[in-house]
Amino acid sequence: MVSADALSSTFAALADPTRRALLAHLARGNATVTELAEPFDLSLPAISKHLKVLERAGLVTRAREAQWRPCQLRARPLREAADWIEAYRELWEHRFDRMAEYLEELQQRRQEETR
Amino acid sequence: MVSADALSSTFAALADPTRRALLAHLARGNATVTELAEPFDLSLPAISKHLKVLERAGLVTRAREAQWRPCQLRARPLREAADWIEAYRELWEHRFDRMAEYLEELQQRRQEETR
Repeated sequence: MVSADALSSTFAALADPTRRALLAHLARGNATVTELAEPFDLSLPAISKHLKVLERAGLVTRAREAQWRPCQLRARPLREAADWIEAYRELWEHRFDRMAEYLEELQQRRQEETR
Repeated sequence: MVSADALSSTFAALADPTRRALLAHLARGNATVTELAEPFDLSLPAISKHLKVLERAGLVTRAREAQWRPCQLRARPLREAADWIEAYRELWEHRFDRMAEYLEELQQRRQEETR
């Protein structure tokens, strides 16, 4: 079981486009803070602040031994967030099914009317 | 395409255990604010505040005509959040695969050592 607070931290960390972009970058491989800052029009301290939020949520870890301390993505919290949302999948799929059925019915009715 | 801000609003709305519990309640059917407040040790204004965050994120709509204005869950933002996270599924599945391979290798090595 994932604690409610861990899940809240994950969702809060994902609630920012820069942080999501940082995760997308790290999904392609480990990177240093300087490498991560490059595509953004942001200062290193601003990037570091975003990284700290991701670290607290367990989405990023930083190597201790190397001097440049590369960042690494940790996928586990993403999996737990996905698990939470997946519980609702049936809901939206059923709604779309019902919508599709309704549209089909509408079309049939129109065809009958124009006969 | 979902705008970056819509996705941020969705994740921010999900970053709270009370709001996630409200969505879980609404997944079972529409409900009034009073009905939603019942299981929580929270005032009606506190629940209303959470509902407003969910409404702004497009996760909840409220009927205008009825006097009791029942709340309804809208699944679309959840589907979009799931789509975003799903892009990372391969990542965590591959990592778990690699972990499983490593454990298998370790076990085989041990079996060879004890022969």
